Amino acid sequence: MYSFKNDYSEGVHPRILNALMESNMEQLEGYGEDQYTRKAIALLKEKIKCEDIDIHLFSGGTQTNLTAISAFLRPHEAVIAADTGHILVHETGAIEATGHKIISIDVSDGKLNSENIKSALYAHTDEHMVRPKLVYISNPTEMGSIYSKDELEQLSDCCRAHKLFLYVDGARIGSALCSEENDMELEDLGKLVDAFYIGGTKNGALMGEALVICRDSLKEDFRFHIKQKGGLLAKGRLLGIQFLELFRDDLFFELAKHANDMAKLLKVGISEAGYSFLTHSPSNQIFPILPNGVIEKLQEKYLFYVWEKIDDESSAIRLVTSWATKEEKVLEFNEDLHNVNC
Amino acid sequence: MYSFKNDYSEGVHPRILNALMESNMEQLEGYGEDQYTRKAIALLKEKIKCEDIDIHLFSGGTQTNLTAISAFLRPHEAVIAADTGHILVHETGAIEATGHKIISIDVSDGKLNSENIKSALYAHTDEHMVRPKLVYISNPTEMGSIYSKDELEQLSDCCRAHKLFLYVDGARIGSALCSEENDMELEDLGKLVDAFYIGGTKNGALMGEALVICRDSLKEDFRFHIKQKGGLLAKGRLLGIQFLELFRDDLFFELAKHANDMAKLLKVGISEAGYSFLTHSPSNQIFPILPNGVIEKLQEKYLFYVWEKIDDESSAIRLVTSWATKEEKVLEFNEDLHNVNC
Amino acid sequence: MYSFKNDYSEGVHPRILNALMESNMEQLEGYGEDQYTRKAIALLKEKIKCEDIDIHLFSGGTQTNLTAISAFLRPHEAVIAADTGHILVHETGAIEATGHKIISIDVSDGKLNSENIKSALYAHTDEHMVRPKLVYISNPTEMGSIYSKDELEQLSDCCRAHKLFLYVDGARIGSALCSEENDMELEDLGKLVDAFYIGGTKNGALMGEALVICRDSLKEDFRFHIKQKGGLLAKGRLLGIQFLELFRDDLFFELAKHANDMAKLLKVGISEAGYSFLTHSPSNQIFPILPNGVIEKLQEKYLFYVWEKIDDESSAIRLVTSWATKEEKVLEFNEDLHNVNC
Amino acid sequence: MYSFKNDYSEGVHPRILNALMESNMEQLEGYGEDQYTRKAIALLKEKIKCEDIDIHLFSGGTQTNLTAISAFLRPHEAVIAADTGHILVHETGAIEATGHKIISIDVSDGKLNSENIKSALYAHTDEHMVRPKLVYISNPTEMGSIYSKDELEQLSDCCRAHKLFLYVDGARIGSALCSEENDMELEDLGKLVDAFYIGGTKNGALMGEALVICRDSLKEDFRFHIKQKGGLLAKGRLLGIQFLELFRDDLFFELAKHANDMAKLLKVGISEAGYSFLTHSPSNQIFPILPNGVIEKLQEKYLFYVWEKIDDESSAIRLVTSWATKEEKVLEFNEDLHNVNC
Repeated sequence: MYSFKNDYSEGVHPRILNALMESNMEQLEGYGEDQYTRKAIALLKEKIKCEDIDIHLFSGGTQTNLTAISAFLRPHEAVIAADTGHILVHETGAIEATGHKIISIDVSDGKLNSENIKSALYAHTDEHMVRPKLVYISNPTEMGSIYSKDELEQLSDCCRAHKLFLYVDGARIGSALCSEENDMELEDLGKLVDAFYIGGTKNGALMGEALVICRDSLKEDFRFHIKQKGGLLAKGRLLGIQFLELFRDDLFFELAKHANDMAKLLKVGISEAGYSFLTHSPSNQIFPILPNGVIEKLQEKYLFYVWEKIDDESSAIRLVTSWATKEEKVLEFNEDLHNVNC
Repeated sequence: MYSFKNDYSEGVHPRILNALMESNMEQLEGYGEDQYTRKAIALLKEKIKCEDIDIHLFSGGTQTNLTAISAFLRPHEAVIAADTGHILVHETGAIEATGHKIISIDVSDGKLNSENIKSALYAHTDEHMVRPKLVYISNPTEMGSIYSKDELEQLSDCCRAHKLFLYVDGARIGSALCSEENDMELEDLGKLVDAFYIGGTKNGALMGEALVICRDSLKEDFRFHIKQKGGLLAKGRLLGIQFLELFRDDLFFELAKHANDMAKLLKVGISEAGYSFLTHSPSNQIFPILPNGVIEKLQEKYLFYVWEKIDDESSAIRLVTSWATKEEKVLEFNEDLHNVNC
Repeated sequence: MYSFKNDYSEGVHPRILNALMESNMEQLEGYGEDQYTRKAIALLKEKIKCEDIDIHLFSGGTQTNLTAISAFLRPHEAVIAADTGHILVHETGAIEATGHKIISIDVSDGKLNSENIKSALYAHTDEHMVRPKLVYISNPTEMGSIYSKDELEQLSDCCRAHKLFLYVDGARIGSALCSEENDMELEDLGKLVDAFYIGGTKNGALMGEALVICRDSLKEDFRFHIKQKGGLLAKGRLLGIQFLELFRDDLFFELAKHANDMAKLLKVGISEAGYSFLTHSPSNQIFPILPNGVIEKLQEKYLFYVWEKIDDESSAIRLVTSWATKEEKVLEFNEDLHNVNC
Repeated sequence: MYSFKNDYSEGVHPRILNALMESNMEQLEGYGEDQYTRKAIALLKEKIKCEDIDIHLFSGGTQTNLTAISAFLRPHEAVIAADTGHILVHETGAIEATGHKIISIDVSDGKLNSENIKSALYAHTDEHMVRPKLVYISNPTEMGSIYSKDELEQLSDCCRAHKLFLYVDGARIGSALCSEENDMELEDLGKLVDAFYIGGTKNGALMGEALVICRDSLKEDFRFHIKQKGGLLAKGRLLGIQFLELFRDDLFFELAKHANDMAKLLKVGISEAGYSFLTHSPSNQIFPILPNGVIEKLQEKYLFYVWEKIDDESSAIRLVTSWATKEEKVLEFNEDLHNVNC
């Protein structure tokens, strides 16, 4: 069986493992105050082309989201998110567990726009309702779509006009930034949003997310929150070394590009086989719609999620590629699909 | 500079790194449902000689403590802990952040006994006060002391008589179990307490704690809590592989024994140099009392914490050894102390 | 100006004020342990025809909801509620502030049915999502509709089959039980649901809600939760005396019936004037749809909420009657509407 | 039996009941936006001689404390309190339930000083510990002692120098301000502290506490917090009318003075009978130390708490007087004590 189920099925990129090995027996400061972590942070600031930001390394996305959002908000303040948002659906109520409501916005493509935000603000009129304060978006979204620079600018303007924080869940930000439809860079994120994170776990690391805090007022005492929420790793070097290796040269982007290329190769094959897709997805997650019989055949050789029933005869499935996806397996999948089809 | 500051200054035991490398390119299930994690859990059950327990792997101690304790308690229930307890002092209010009060008990040696517990129960009489429900102890304690089997049995009896949960923070449990004064085994913990964790981070792992839930009523839906609190690693294999390697043979205990041996070697040297200790500590943390001038001299070559002022001329320092502490460095320290002394 | 804005614009029924006065200088136990509170609770048990229930008195609905729900649920458990549910919209995230997510179900008439519940259960499959555990309904709903006994039985069966708690927000339960379309009694609530509250604030009391806990497993230590959430009144007599007076004879039901009668009188007048309603409402809240010009005219003499825009020319308004609504004012309103209309 | 158990055994001062009656049938805005509440707030500002403060009315002390403190603090921030502090002991972990640790300071007389605060700050050095941010004091304290103006000024200076909020629990503030040893006025509180509350429940009201927020940065969106925590009474008039009546003339102070006078009368009698006191208490709570046999005799006619065992033969009891305590009963008590003594 070959898995297109997700982008965390494989281990870590071999270069990272080597880097861990080389530094292994050095005695280093704990809790992320070692030299590797310091260097990784300095390097990330360089890549984002901004010195005036704070960066903290985490071991997972849910932990990053819940620590950041609960640190940023006062008790009565709420999050606005798309109904597909990871924090709304797939984090077991982690945000609510810190006391904050998430206001769900129905969207079709996973993306929020300024109209969505204004309507949420409009509906929350007084102290009998929560106060919307932070807008959560994912880039790419959970539906594989990505934000254009123009779209992000509009969101940013809207948030600043209404004193809302704009936060980007970048669990797969590498895939967004390396998408052929992307027109943004890390630098733009640094300018347009209040905080975002750069996902390592789904792009070659063993684990690791780098939270970037851009807005000054959100920086104070942040390490207290990491510790309180259980996210301060004793051997913080583990995170620092990985990000250092990912960004020392362009490894991070090369890995993301490979994942996107593999997704595109799948898309081409699926399109040629005559099938359409649930969403327009220029990233490493695609959602082809296939007849149920075809899906069953494919399930004999491949692992993937059946995402959504379309009608009695067909369903959308989700295929995810990663830095480790093998081209030969993608070609084999396409061929199998072609053959099943016949 | 050589560090005796803590037991997480070095990386991971090389055998573990090799094990990570060997399995690295396999495609595995995420979130701790991979075969390595399953095997590690089966192996731990074997070591604890009990099948009727649940085991969950975490990436750090604070996260383990906060997830377990908040899952076990109802909102009005509180924890009883020694005033030196890690959760009371050094976890940034992580337990309170989940809504629970910790009742602090003044103790001199870091250890709780059944009299302490009864007095806490006696002081909490009605619904205007919290209800004490879980007793938290560390073994070894934060002062280096360890519990005897008899002491743990008495605590266990007291907790069962008063319907309290007994929870053991085992961040350094390896050191306790390998202490020359220890008369307990993993198996005894499984029988006497309701939940405990086996610390990997401070005993050779990159990170990793194995929470063992013994009491049936505490097991239900536990994975929901791990996910909600941000502790469910996407690449859970990272934890499974490490525990598998640590317990495949006796590596875990060998590493802990080495740390204890090094601490003992330090103790002998320090005693021979004519100094006494703040506490009786048969584990890998010792607290010698030294003249301030001597401390300053030692600080030129060694890193360690100055723990507590004793009087105007002397202070207790904390020296911690680990699986990676080099015997030659310990001997050098002893010699330096001897020479400083002259 | 005469107000149809809500049912808490007036003070307290005079008989209650008299009862407060008569007992005023007695020395009584605090915190709800006085004899009046005890008698009130005994009386309510009689009215519900069940001894095997626990009853606690609160000073407001939000406090009742948040205390009960947070006491009943474990951290990963969630509430299912209609999208119009008071806890979802108008309590400033009070439930989320205690750590629990509310799963919103789109409904048109404010009522949940067993299909809604099953679909929510079906969508929550594993530990990456919260576990639905408590079904929250309001009777009457926030849209003025009420549940029939048959509907409640079906909900109750569904909840029991799926191990869900069924909780009824009875802020206006008097109005529901005295509706001409109602076929239930307090006694039925006691049998079919796990907990519900009997609202006094909106039916003649100065303040006061009586929470009834029917399910044994939800009763333990409940007073701790009331105290912890700030709801244990020092002079608890204030609540006990009011409920005693409301239920000593049928005052509670007479007041609710009056409110319903006044709402019905309004409905007849509005219907005769040729207007329709947003929802079918047999309780003390009605939602007539009127031309915007008519609404403006009425606003010169009456206070009420404009509830929802229907189209460019008309809107639904909300009219609420209470125990204190004067028949002459209702007739005047109807006449004014008739005249405006001409 | 006559009760000296507490100051909430009786109902409400008759003048307040009359005021409630007079306004009872008026239609008023809900949720504290009625004219009576507005007038009460304006009047309180006048008494405090400061316009630049925000005032909110609550129904009880625990609710006031938990709402204010959780609104004022960020998640990692903690409270410093005396070990006798009401929030630490007698509010069922209400503050911890909102996520915040309370740092307990051992004191003998219930009072904190700036040395206590500095030592707490000194002990909290980094992000592994909570950050002390709010100092909670009670005036009078739970031991009956009161702060002098000079003492409060020193605390205030210390807090401002260290960027700490100073918060005063004024459940019995009337008794403090009317103590013969007091040299402060409401006005001084307004200048020296960041927030405090004026307790009505224990001084003649049915219920009611007026929270005064002095520091600008703590005022924003405060009503959201009241609603979220369940403290926003629908018929807010109930609170407004009471405070209006209490402060319309000097009723509030007269009632407090009566309570103090009665306590003093008790003290004189007890001293004359040859007994001493556990603490120096110039307010309405006193703690005489009596032989156990005497206590038993008194318990035949009087209700009070036995506070603390002093030795095998004697205990301290707590006697509390109130606005409603009858002088004849106090004299009777003194006489009974005198007689028992013989």
